Amino acid sequence: MKIFVAQLDPIVGDIKGNVKKIIEEIEKAKSQKADVIVFSEMVVTGYPPEDLVHYEDFIDKAEKAVNEILPYTKDLMVIVGTIRRNLQGVGNPIYNTAAVLCDQNLLGYKDKTLLPTYDVFDERRYFCEGADQKVFSYKGSKIGILICEDIWGHGGQVRYTKYKRDPVEELKKLQPDIVVNLSASPYYFQKKDTRIQTCLKAYETLKTPLILCNQVGANDQLVFDGYSFVLNDKGQLVYMAKGFEEDSFLFDTEIKYQEKTFAVDPEKDLFEALVIGVKDYFIKQGLKSAHIALSGGIDSALVLCIAVKALGKENVYPIFMPSRFTSLESIEDAHFIASNLNVSLKEIPIDEMFQNYLNLLSPYFYGKGPDVTEENLQARIRGVILMAFSNKFGSVVLSTGNKSEMAMGYATLYGDMCGGLDVLIDVSKTRVYSLARWLNRDKEIIPQRIIEKAPSAELKEGQTDYESLPSYEIVDTVLEKYVEEYYSVEDIVKAYGYPEKLVEELVKKIHRAEYKRRQGPPGIRVTKKAFSIGRYFPIVQKWV
Amino acid sequence: MKIFVAQLDPIVGDIKGNVKKIIEEIEKAKSQKADVIVFSEMVVTGYPPEDLVHYEDFIDKAEKAVNEILPYTKDLMVIVGTIRRNLQGVGNPIYNTAAVLCDQNLLGYKDKTLLPTYDVFDERRYFCEGADQKVFSYKGSKIGILICEDIWGHGGQVRYTKYKRDPVEELKKLQPDIVVNLSASPYYFQKKDTRIQTCLKAYETLKTPLILCNQVGANDQLVFDGYSFVLNDKGQLVYMAKGFEEDSFLFDTEIKYQEKTFAVDPEKDLFEALVIGVKDYFIKQGLKSAHIALSGGIDSALVLCIAVKALGKENVYPIFMPSRFTSLESIEDAHFIASNLNVSLKEIPIDEMFQNYLNLLSPYFYGKGPDVTEENLQARIRGVILMAFSNKFGSVVLSTGNKSEMAMGYATLYGDMCGGLDVLIDVSKTRVYSLARWLNRDKEIIPQRIIEKAPSAELKEGQTDYESLPSYEIVDTVLEKYVEEYYSVEDIVKAYGYPEKLVEELVKKIHRAEYKRRQGPPGIRVTKKAFSIGRYFPIVQKWV
Repeated sequence: MKIFVAQLDPIVGDIKGNVKKIIEEIEKAKSQKADVIVFSEMVVTGYPPEDLVHYEDFIDKAEKAVNEILPYTKDLMVIVGTIRRNLQGVGNPIYNTAAVLCDQNLLGYKDKTLLPTYDVFDERRYFCEGADQKVFSYKGSKIGILICEDIWGHGGQVRYTKYKRDPVEELKKLQPDIVVNLSASPYYFQKKDTRIQTCLKAYETLKTPLILCNQVGANDQLVFDGYSFVLNDKGQLVYMAKGFEEDSFLFDTEIKYQEKTFAVDPEKDLFEALVIGVKDYFIKQGLKSAHIALSGGIDSALVLCIAVKALGKENVYPIFMPSRFTSLESIEDAHFIASNLNVSLKEIPIDEMFQNYLNLLSPYFYGKGPDVTEENLQARIRGVILMAFSNKFGSVVLSTGNKSEMAMGYATLYGDMCGGLDVLIDVSKTRVYSLARWLNRDKEIIPQRIIEKAPSAELKEGQTDYESLPSYEIVDTVLEKYVEEYYSVEDIVKAYGYPEKLVEELVKKIHRAEYKRRQGPPGIRVTKKAFSIGRYFPIVQKWV
Repeated sequence: MKIFVAQLDPIVGDIKGNVKKIIEEIEKAKSQKADVIVFSEMVVTGYPPEDLVHYEDFIDKAEKAVNEILPYTKDLMVIVGTIRRNLQGVGNPIYNTAAVLCDQNLLGYKDKTLLPTYDVFDERRYFCEGADQKVFSYKGSKIGILICEDIWGHGGQVRYTKYKRDPVEELKKLQPDIVVNLSASPYYFQKKDTRIQTCLKAYETLKTPLILCNQVGANDQLVFDGYSFVLNDKGQLVYMAKGFEEDSFLFDTEIKYQEKTFAVDPEKDLFEALVIGVKDYFIKQGLKSAHIALSGGIDSALVLCIAVKALGKENVYPIFMPSRFTSLESIEDAHFIASNLNVSLKEIPIDEMFQNYLNLLSPYFYGKGPDVTEENLQARIRGVILMAFSNKFGSVVLSTGNKSEMAMGYATLYGDMCGGLDVLIDVSKTRVYSLARWLNRDKEIIPQRIIEKAPSAELKEGQTDYESLPSYEIVDTVLEKYVEEYYSVEDIVKAYGYPEKLVEELVKKIHRAEYKRRQGPPGIRVTKKAFSIGRYFPIVQKWV
């Protein structure tokens, strides 16, 4: 049996465009004599459509899409992820489902059983739990269908809940010959390995070839890495599609494939995730150009590299806005990185404007010494200038705050936090450095000096981040353990031997900055727990 | 049987403080010879604690709270809302539950059955569904316990799902003598009436006295209106606590109460909801003072009234920041409202600063005519000034954008959208006017001229809102039907006869402004569907 796996990058809500893509893939599959074509989860609507599914006309249009695809299914079975109404009268109004079409007939639907409702997933808000497992017979083979999470409960990889049902065990009873999994499985650091391990667990139970078709591309804050793959009847990984781009392939159960090994390069994956995160944010909205505040520091240098890769250097406009506190090194480094990337750099000094504000405000601030007010003023003047360029030229500002800064509140709201998308929102400072080193692996793209110098916001004389923070190694360890792994302060102290006061202070800073993050730009999620999506903490609370 | 109903305003995560309050109420109940005391849903942790419940030490502390309360339960039954661990090994890790304590013994728990997971509720993210209904016998009466949503499925008031179980019908089989409902039922416009109607439906099935104890106060964006009440054995409303403040009362099943009627004044409720929304945001964070940009228009005038009521006039600092486009009327009106409310008004002209930016940017904008850039610049200069005051004096900026503006994107990101809390984020322009008229019912607090003049952002010569928008009657109708009721464009055209192009354009504006709202301040939710909480739409989408 020849199975064509279509790894697509759908646009949320673009049912017409997505159906067009689906039909094109079907034609491609036919030309390769495929028997079956598998698409990813909810490829018809794009994933996740969120509250769009509360509109009846949205559901109507998604349901009708099946009819538009039907005429193209002659001599072929099509398994396509979509939504359909729940007509039972109880439960949520729709299913997350796979429509099975064959020879211009709709054979039926296989609904998703396990509905993840944790972290970035909200499926029990929208969907009704599928009743039974099913197999669909075609050309002498029984094809079992699972949808994304259906396979994850079995793998023991879900930390937030323990499902009552196990669709893998349920499906096993129906003795399928081949199992396909339709996924919209978002990327986080090293997720690919976890995904393969999870499918291997399912293989151990099912003992059939297992084909996972994943969505690729970014929607808002979520990146889908693709990397669709096949485990053969021996549980060997014999095929894997490309990551971070559309890529379809044919798998033939009759062919003996060699077991494949794949280069493990998590930094490369992370970089590509950030690139497609930026690219799809722009392309899918019909946007083209970006403005970036280049400071001479490492974060904006890295964002510039990502933006140039995503949008092309002709569409990226860095602006350097020095003040009285900007160091000579920063001036040189900003120009160095811009010329390295062959983008022209505008230099707009803000010192005069800063002085204007100081003069305007001085009568009201009489008797009060300088404090964070004056630091924030500089960041906000830069924000105003950037946004003026964005408005005048129809570009998007890319902001550059990293996860460690967002955690600590070490950023100015309406200042350096201005932007349509925060590229590094989920990349810790430690990982910013490792990514910069990875980028420089063959050639010095980011000047080595930027990587080596002590990080500074340069908002007052002689400032460095370490004035108000311990080393980023400590900050990032606390960040990872407290935010991603839900360690308590006590657990962190026990595990790492940091002073309790220090850990407590860092955790307090994380909660105190909640009000800032609430108003920060959306940003690309690349870890198991991002600030920007799937994390909900009250601003007003007295726990911490 | 004497039942004491304790309507409290807990602080999220302040388990220690909440337990202290609970014990004080128990003492009060004892002094009134109560047999039973009922608290609201999750009063121990405050509602909603959101992801705080992912921390094991948070659950530990909440579980231990029961032990702290136990010693105070001699000769009294205490029914108190809290959380507890699910020890079954399947499902979500905790229950939303009522602990039943009596005579220094823990009699047991009654877990919440229906877990709302729509709009502002995310309970299936966190909680495990309760297994059975239960009654607890005390002094010859069987007391049935329902928790908030448990009563709402029966009432047919849930639009997003249809529950499989009906706890009211289940409980009926256990033949309770009295039923209590522990609620954290958030306010929206006219919700009180809906809540009473819902309980009347439950009464029709249960035919027992029904006592609803609701949370009061605001947590972040949610306001809980209180208004705890009693339906007697004839289904008559015989007692209702105050709205928007802590208020406890004793209900005696042996006394024949008169049926009570209550004045219906939805504008008063709305005003009080906004006041407590502001007040609790400040008090619960230990904040005191607010800065407000007063423009001479109706929105900021109304916010000033609300802030003065919530924080006291000595804590509210309006700033008037005229530009070349500010009208003489606005200058007069801003001063008029400030003097009406007896607050001193700072006047800081921004025109020179505006000119400074124009000069700074002109070399880069050469050949480009004026557009929205220059309008936004003015709003952003005001934002920078306001935030400097906020930083320097440790105050919070209250922003004043109303729901209609937020819908249409008729606001400047990082400009007038600056602020810790947007007071009117869920109040449409039409309702802003009706609230202003209500405020003026006895005395002209908001100058009549502000109410009567055409609304204008005054960011360019001769500007009014109607340049780019139809009347607010149309905007607000489309807003309500499209956002709150999920009408399609077609349905709105059919129902109201507006031109299809116009409705389409308004709906497009709503979606196009998604990126702005994502970065707007949190704001007080007062309708069935707010932009600020419980509404999730993709920024990147091609449905609209």
